[in-house]
Order: sequence, then C-alpha cells, then structure tokens
Amino acid sequence: MSTKKIHYPKNILLNDHIIPYESAYIPVFDRGFLFGDGIYEVMVREKHGVFFQSAHLDRLQENLHKIGLQYNISKIEKQIPELLLRNDLQSETALIYIQVTRGVAPRKHAYPDNPSPTLFMYAVPYTITPVNTSNITAVVVPDYRWQRCDIKTTSLMGNTMANEAAHLRNADEAVFVRDGRITEGSHCNIFFVRDGMVYTHPADTHILNGITRKIVIALCRQHRIPVKETAWEAIALEQADEAFLSGTTVQIASIARLGEHTYYEGDNCGPVTRTLQQAFADLKKTDTTQQKL
Amino acid sequence: MSTKKIHYPKNILLNDHIIPYESAYIPVFDRGFLFGDGIYEVMVREKHGVFFQSAHLDRLQENLHKIGLQYNISKIEKQIPELLLRNDLQSETALIYIQVTRGVAPRKHAYPDNPSPTLFMYAVPYTITPVNTSNITAVVVPDYRWQRCDIKTTSLMGNTMANEAAHLRNADEAVFVRDGRITEGSHCNIFFVRDGMVYTHPADTHILNGITRKIVIALCRQHRIPVKETAWEAIALEQADEAFLSGTTVQIASIARLGEHTYYEGDNCGPVTRTLQQAFADLKKTDTTQQKL
Repeated sequence: MSTKKIHYPKNILLNDHIIPYESAYIPVFDRGFLFGDGIYEVMVREKHGVFFQSAHLDRLQENLHKIGLQYNISKIEKQIPELLLRNDLQSETALIYIQVTRGVAPRKHAYPDNPSPTLFMYAVPYTITPVNTSNITAVVVPDYRWQRCDIKTTSLMGNTMANEAAHLRNADEAVFVRDGRITEGSHCNIFFVRDGMVYTHPADTHILNGITRKIVIALCRQHRIPVKETAWEAIALEQADEAFLSGTTVQIASIARLGEHTYYEGDNCGPVTRTLQQAFADLKKTDTTQQKL
Repeated sequence: MSTKKIHYPKNILLNDHIIPYESAYIPVFDRGFLFGDGIYEVMVREKHGVFFQSAHLDRLQENLHKIGLQYNISKIEKQIPELLLRNDLQSETALIYIQVTRGVAPRKHAYPDNPSPTLFMYAVPYTITPVNTSNITAVVVPDYRWQRCDIKTTSLMGNTMANEAAHLRNADEAVFVRDGRITEGSHCNIFFVRDGMVYTHPADTHILNGITRKIVIALCRQHRIPVKETAWEAIALEQADEAFLSGTTVQIASIARLGEHTYYEGDNCGPVTRTLQQAFADLKKTDTTQQKL
C-alpha cells in the first residue's frame, strides 16, 4: 500500500467551484486548519459508478451530524460527475476524496454560530484491480487514539503518527491494540479467521465502521461463512489461521505478517480471505452506487 | 471566558510574509487542513514583553520534535515584534497565536519526505487584567481524548466537542475525567486545594503541561504552599476546599461551580487561589520573556 505513488489532482472542487488544484486555497481561519474540525470520506469510482456511493454519502451525513454540523450533502452527489469530467476521469477508475469542515471563524474552541461549512473534493486516477493480491505487513501498536474512532474526523494526528511508525518499519499498516484487543488499522479495518469463523471488532466507538467492513460482513452472510463481531485478543495473533484488512482503497488484503507472527509466506493467502476477495470482485461487477448498507 | 468577544487580526504572518488576514490563504493540500497535522502555541504580550516567551517557544520546538517535524523555530522570535508592529500592537496587550504544520503534500497518512512546513502566526488585541476575577463554571465530562494529550496538536476535534458541550450548558469550561480521575480542562489545566495543600494531575501523557501550570507550581514552592502532582478523584469534588483553572488566557481563575458542586457563591474565591492570583499578578510586573521553566 505505502509504495503506491500519489499525485495531485488536476482540478478540485472548493465550495461551488471547480478550479485548478494549484489555485485552490482556503482561508487560514478555516476551522479545518485551526482545529481539525471536519469530516471526510474516500470513495472509488469504477466501471459501474462510485462503489457504494449512497452508503458513503449517508455515512458522511451521519458523521456531520455527530459533530453537530448542519450541512446538507445532497448537492455533493450532483457535483461528483462534473468533478470527474473536469479531471478527464469519465471512463477511468478514480479515487474521490470529500472533506467538509465547520468553515471560517475567529479562533475559539466552541463552535461559531451559523457556520458556513467548507466543502473540498477532489478526484485522482486510481488503479484498482478486482482482487488486491498484495500481501500486507503490519506492525502492532498501542491504540492511543481517542474514544470516538467512530467519527471520521480530519483530526487525524494519532492515525498519521501510527501510520508513519509503520512506514518507518517498512510495514504497510499499523494495527492498534486497546485493552489487549485488536481494534483496527490506522486507515483500515481488520478481520481474523479461525476454524472457518470470521472475527472483527464490534462497530462501537473504538473503530470506524468501514463501508468495506460492512460489505465483508454481508458477503460472509451470503456465503454462509459465520461472522462474530468480537475483537481478537492481541496475545492470540498466532491462533488465527488468516488475517486480512478491509478498506475502500485496500479492498480486502491478506495479511502476510502481523507483528511477530507470519500467516503466509510469499503470495499465499488463506482460503476464507480468497473466497471473500472473489466475492468482492464479483460484487464490483454490479452497480452498487445506490445500494445501502 | 466563553463570553469574550473575539475578532480577526488585521495582518497575519504566513511563512515569511505579513499580509492582511483577508488575503491569507493556505493550499487545500496543507496537512494542517487534511490531517490536523500541526502544533500550536498561544502566548500573551504584556507591558514587559511576551509572558514567558522562551518557555512557550521551547515547548513549541519540543512538540514539533514529538511529531517528528524538523523545523527550526528560531526565526519566530524575530518575527513577533514585526507582527505586533504591523498590527499596531506595539504598546497594547495582545494575544499571539502560532501554528506550524507539516506543509503541503499529496494526501497520504505517512509523512512526506522533506516536508516544507507552514508557519501561521497572528496577534490580536487582548484585554488581560492582573488578576482574573471571573469565577468559572465548569461541567465534568468523560475524557475520551487520545492518550498523547501532552502533544499540543491542532487535531483538536475532541477538545472542541467538549468545549462546545460546556458552552451549550452555559458553562465556561469542560473538565475531563479519565479512569475516575480529573485530568484537565478542554483548554486549561486544573488544580484543587484541600487543607492548604494544592493538587494537580501529574504532567504525563494525559495532560498538556501548561506553561501557567508550571508557573503555578513554581509560585506554590516560592510561597511555601505544598503541592502534590497527584490527580484529584472525580468522586471527591466536594472534598476540595477550592478549585481553580490555569492557562495562558485564563491565567488563574477560581472555579465557582464544578459539575454538581459549588465551591464559592458570587464573587468569593478561596484564600489559596487568591494568594496564587496575587503572586501571579506580581510576577507579571517583572520581565519573564527569557525565563525558562
């Protein structure tokens, strides 16, 4: 993951305007800059449209509600095709990033009255294969983040610090442990498999309830793979047969090595992970744009 | 505190330029905007110069180090007088805000190679009395923030949410409880007094080690008031004789009401708080600009 080359987009959307990225600036008093006071989303546009677009936009709306920010996201849906067009991405796979902040106000912690939120959105070409065949190496780090990880906020210092720690150890991801239990990765959810049963942390306030996480659970049910929303114990990493990450860009990625434990050598991948990857690839052949989760 | 009217500055400093605030913009790809990936400081300039300027700038440097950001802050010291001059604040009391972010890069969690940090700084007129005679009302909320509260990061969603919760309940501050113990406020430290002994949470990773907090401890020692860096139990609020907040803008402020407990009615204030307030006011008569803590 971490080796993927990333670029700036050609044109971005800022509030109601699509403009070249080089001329896209926000006021220094934007609360997104002063306080990390905002919510974001990442989606991928593929052949059939934006993968689970409605599910992503619903989550965005729900998260804005969680931070008490009144903002109707309905116009975003209309702006996506225009943004893709203005980036020559009408027929390319693309990554779409959306950020809404509480807008511009003199600096004080409490929220401004009648804020005028800032909307920032961009799209970049993004190569995405039906099945993610990369095998992940992840380090295990203490989960020192806040206790509202269910909020997809741009106050991401804790996540970036952990991701950087992984990067410095030549790993793809940092996986968090809170109170002895594995919660999630710095920007992915995590699943374990044992004796054909799939385990993942419950969707409480200690994890971000990923769209791909929800899809994986739905796919398990469809394929009669039993799933338990029960956190895996950090001391029992070697007792799992398989482990994999889920996320919008990582999709479903087999974990080769987690902390000190190696699940698979080389390009190998566990059978449950492989089944789910194939089911996920099949799902991508359908139009999920308006599908709810 | 929360009723203080705040304004935009006239001119702000952005990197090496002092420009009108209305034309001060940062690129949308600044990591301060995308990730809350930055550090900040707040200082007050009074008659004798910036109160404990060296202590504040040392902390800024130390915090940048904590987030692995190479940035030499030495030029900031020279820029402060120029910024004050360009805001007609040569002889006024002023609040100075400094923010350094990891600069502009395509969006990914891990840090960019060779970042070019962004420096943002402003100064506004700020009325500050020798003794803060306001009596604070504070609510008690669970400390759901991360476990690196020692880092003065701009990823402040948790602090702003708590402060807003206080604001909605007509309180001045939200005071956090972690594992049954009072840690600090959303933007202040907190002290308790019992039988002449002063208590405050130890300066570990669960609080921001405030400059004013350190000053209060030093003043206690000078005035032979015993101090224990021991957290106060949240179930024992009514067992304290006095409680007060400390912070750069709040200075030392008596807490009239904390959660369900009333310490003082009306304008009354405890004797230890009053002694420390007076000692603090006396300290303000001296030049502390270069003083270390």
